[in-house]
Amino acid sequence: MNATLLRSAFYIAAICGLYLAAAMFVPAMADLYYANRDWQVFAICGFMVGGISAVTAVAMRGNPPPFSRRLGFFLVNLLWVTFALVGSIPLYLAGPDLSFAQSLFESVSAITTTGSTVLTGLDHMAPGLLLWRSLLQWMGGIGIVALGLFILPFLRIGGMAFFKMESSDTSDKPFARMASFTRAFLAIYVGITIVCAISYDVAGMSHFDAVNHALTTVATGGFSTHDASFGYFDNPELLWIAAFFMTVCSLPFSILILFIVRGRLDTLRDPQIMLFLMYLLIAAFLLALYISLDGQMSFTAGLTQAIFNVSSVLSTTGYASADYMTWGSFAIVMVFFLMFMGGCSGSTAGGIKSYRFLVLFNMLKTGLKKLIYPNAVYSVRYGTLTVDSDTQRAVSMFFSAYILLWAVGSIAMAALGYDLITSTSAVLTALSNVGPGLGDIIGPAGNFSTMADPELLLLTVLMLLGRLEILTVVVILMPMYWRG
Amino acid sequence: MNATLLRSAFYIAAICGLYLAAAMFVPAMADLYYANRDWQVFAICGFMVGGISAVTAVAMRGNPPPFSRRLGFFLVNLLWVTFALVGSIPLYLAGPDLSFAQSLFESVSAITTTGSTVLTGLDHMAPGLLLWRSLLQWMGGIGIVALGLFILPFLRIGGMAFFKMESSDTSDKPFARMASFTRAFLAIYVGITIVCAISYDVAGMSHFDAVNHALTTVATGGFSTHDASFGYFDNPELLWIAAFFMTVCSLPFSILILFIVRGRLDTLRDPQIMLFLMYLLIAAFLLALYISLDGQMSFTAGLTQAIFNVSSVLSTTGYASADYMTWGSFAIVMVFFLMFMGGCSGSTAGGIKSYRFLVLFNMLKTGLKKLIYPNAVYSVRYGTLTVDSDTQRAVSMFFSAYILLWAVGSIAMAALGYDLITSTSAVLTALSNVGPGLGDIIGPAGNFSTMADPELLLLTVLMLLGRLEILTVVVILMPMYWRG
Repeated sequence: MNATLLRSAFYIAAICGLYLAAAMFVPAMADLYYANRDWQVFAICGFMVGGISAVTAVAMRGNPPPFSRRLGFFLVNLLWVTFALVGSIPLYLAGPDLSFAQSLFESVSAITTTGSTVLTGLDHMAPGLLLWRSLLQWMGGIGIVALGLFILPFLRIGGMAFFKMESSDTSDKPFARMASFTRAFLAIYVGITIVCAISYDVAGMSHFDAVNHALTTVATGGFSTHDASFGYFDNPELLWIAAFFMTVCSLPFSILILFIVRGRLDTLRDPQIMLFLMYLLIAAFLLALYISLDGQMSFTAGLTQAIFNVSSVLSTTGYASADYMTWGSFAIVMVFFLMFMGGCSGSTAGGIKSYRFLVLFNMLKTGLKKLIYPNAVYSVRYGTLTVDSDTQRAVSMFFSAYILLWAVGSIAMAALGYDLITSTSAVLTALSNVGPGLGDIIGPAGNFSTMADPELLLLTVLMLLGRLEILTVVVILMPMYWRG
Repeated sequence: MNATLLRSAFYIAAICGLYLAAAMFVPAMADLYYANRDWQVFAICGFMVGGISAVTAVAMRGNPPPFSRRLGFFLVNLLWVTFALVGSIPLYLAGPDLSFAQSLFESVSAITTTGSTVLTGLDHMAPGLLLWRSLLQWMGGIGIVALGLFILPFLRIGGMAFFKMESSDTSDKPFARMASFTRAFLAIYVGITIVCAISYDVAGMSHFDAVNHALTTVATGGFSTHDASFGYFDNPELLWIAAFFMTVCSLPFSILILFIVRGRLDTLRDPQIMLFLMYLLIAAFLLALYISLDGQMSFTAGLTQAIFNVSSVLSTTGYASADYMTWGSFAIVMVFFLMFMGGCSGSTAGGIKSYRFLVLFNMLKTGLKKLIYPNAVYSVRYGTLTVDSDTQRAVSMFFSAYILLWAVGSIAMAALGYDLITSTSAVLTALSNVGPGLGDIIGPAGNFSTMADPELLLLTVLMLLGRLEILTVVVILMPMYWRG
């Protein structure tokens, strides 16, 4: 790392700071509108962050160096840390007496679109604060899609390089096609948010609730304006609407763009979309069958609940409509394993992701064939494409890193005093950016408000690791990265 | 598959049947000695199984075809199924009113050296029956070492091919070096058993208990002659002796042979042994620290308990000296993740195994380096050796297959009505061939006696899958295997 690279990274971070500062005037205006005194906090924060960002941007301006992978790794980490810190300031100042660790946890939970919360009494909280949380998630969603589409493939993290937008694109310039693509993506992201908000509004939410939930649905974030999340509304129609939008936003945005902008229906027949929808429908059907056979509710009511909660977990949104901890072991164990799965690449969803499972399945299938005919040549398929060995290696690496990190994190949580279900699910929900965990404390009926600072900091780090696909963070912790 | 191959496989299975029939006269004699009527059951079974095996052997005799991988896969599965069925007959006939599924579970738990039991009241059970269980485990241990040293490397399963005995050996004839090596192995296996039995005896066990526990210690099996397992003896000396032998028998027997026969001390500096001992000591130290800081017992008493129970789980033996479910969350979560780990290759231990973790760690390390310098050439190291890409692929494949099977199995257990901790740990203990699980039902203070036939059959299949390194079984379930 040299000074030019560092300057350049801080310059970009400062530009992002300016955008975040501008965003703070949205909750300021909301609080003004609802005559809440908090508007001053947001306005002051906005001016402060804006000022510091502007000064930094001017100080760090210069000829940008060629975009290198080394700069890329540093930049991604720097941007997310900046995002987390800036996001936490209004929460710390305006929030109901949060510690720094709690504010940071809430901020990171927002920007990673996780949706775990340390706040209780959301129903009576200042509108500006609620809107800030929702906005952070919504902006986090944009960051994640940009990361997944442009940066991670370039950094060759986790096999994402396989999903370069155009098969003819073999250049190493991730920003080359960014301009036009970013415009299309932002238009669609904003568009879906508006349609989602109107749908919620029409189906019965207040304007304020509709806007907030639309922001956190499209980001597959899961922050709500009510402690009971979607359970508050007690409205099946809203559950189906949410399930639809959560599912749509778990699909690759590159494909959504081809579908919406160019009207190419065939693009939806993507292998990872097929697999994702398959396990969503199978899991929801089995769950509905289980809770209806168990006599807890009718099959149709069960199906509504199952579709909503399964898509909430699989899309890593983390809304809850009911306490599925009371639905029996099958529901609990099912949700536990669904928390590993996640959505598609290039979406706002987290988790291990369906394309990686697809690659792993096909590696297993190919490996088994090779056990029978060792000298035959079999390629690992992804639809009609062949998965190259670098991608296979990257997928395997990510999978093992994920499981190992889950194990180590869970043992650390247990050392802090949490039982098996809480430890393992807290780490899982953080790594996969889902939101709620399992058990009495952090289950869908609970939250993270009773957790102490050490465990919140641990989970904060894990949320960031999960969101940045683990290796992006680990790589800058290696001494080798900083040498030479 | 053609008729010659099938005949040849059945011929070898029949020869094994003869050995098993002969083994039945050991419990018969024990029952005669202790004046128990069960001796007749064992004698009759011995004659029946012996007769059928002899007839089959004669009928199937012929020129053996060249040993092929295709025959190898079929043979391994056939041998283990034969072993399981033959082993279950005396349990079904002489056991205290067991169902067929229970007998089969107990038999498979024995031969896979798992050590989960459906029996209660072991303390007052007929000596012949107890000895038969111990003998089955001991023989299972021989089978596993033979499998790991000779067959699986030849079948290229799970990266075991990396551990060919001599680096100069590149032939595809697994039986070439078998004769001399088998003799050395059997001598050492019997030798360790005798030393272990004498140690137990001297430290205070009855002769009968000493023999039984020696048989199941060396096999890292874990069947006991008392419901309370090692807790019955309440003797720290016995715990240290058991911990020593369980650890020794989790080391690669190929290395134990070099060490004992040729006196080569340097062979113990093997990377997988170092890693295995490292996580054994770290886990035991942390656990001892935790239970002593928690005020449950003194550090020395805690260390004895920790060393014993950690080596019991890591070696996948499954003895218990105390109910670690009462030691608090940290102990429970620690044991949960230790159950994945396992011992070394070519030992009687199960689990994912330390060499695979070593390869995974080094793949991650190399992968991270390559993220920084994509054009540099880094090789994945195993000590001073380079791990070829086939081995890397095989290790990754095994790891993903293991985790996926664990997930699917756990969901199935949950559908049968078990809670998260019971479902996930039951499947884990079966796949890793440990023995006890976690939770109230199958934890170290419980057993599998209350489980119904469907879940016992599921776990039986999982024990076999785990023992045969998963893919060995899956491969013969593929239609492709049977074609052409």
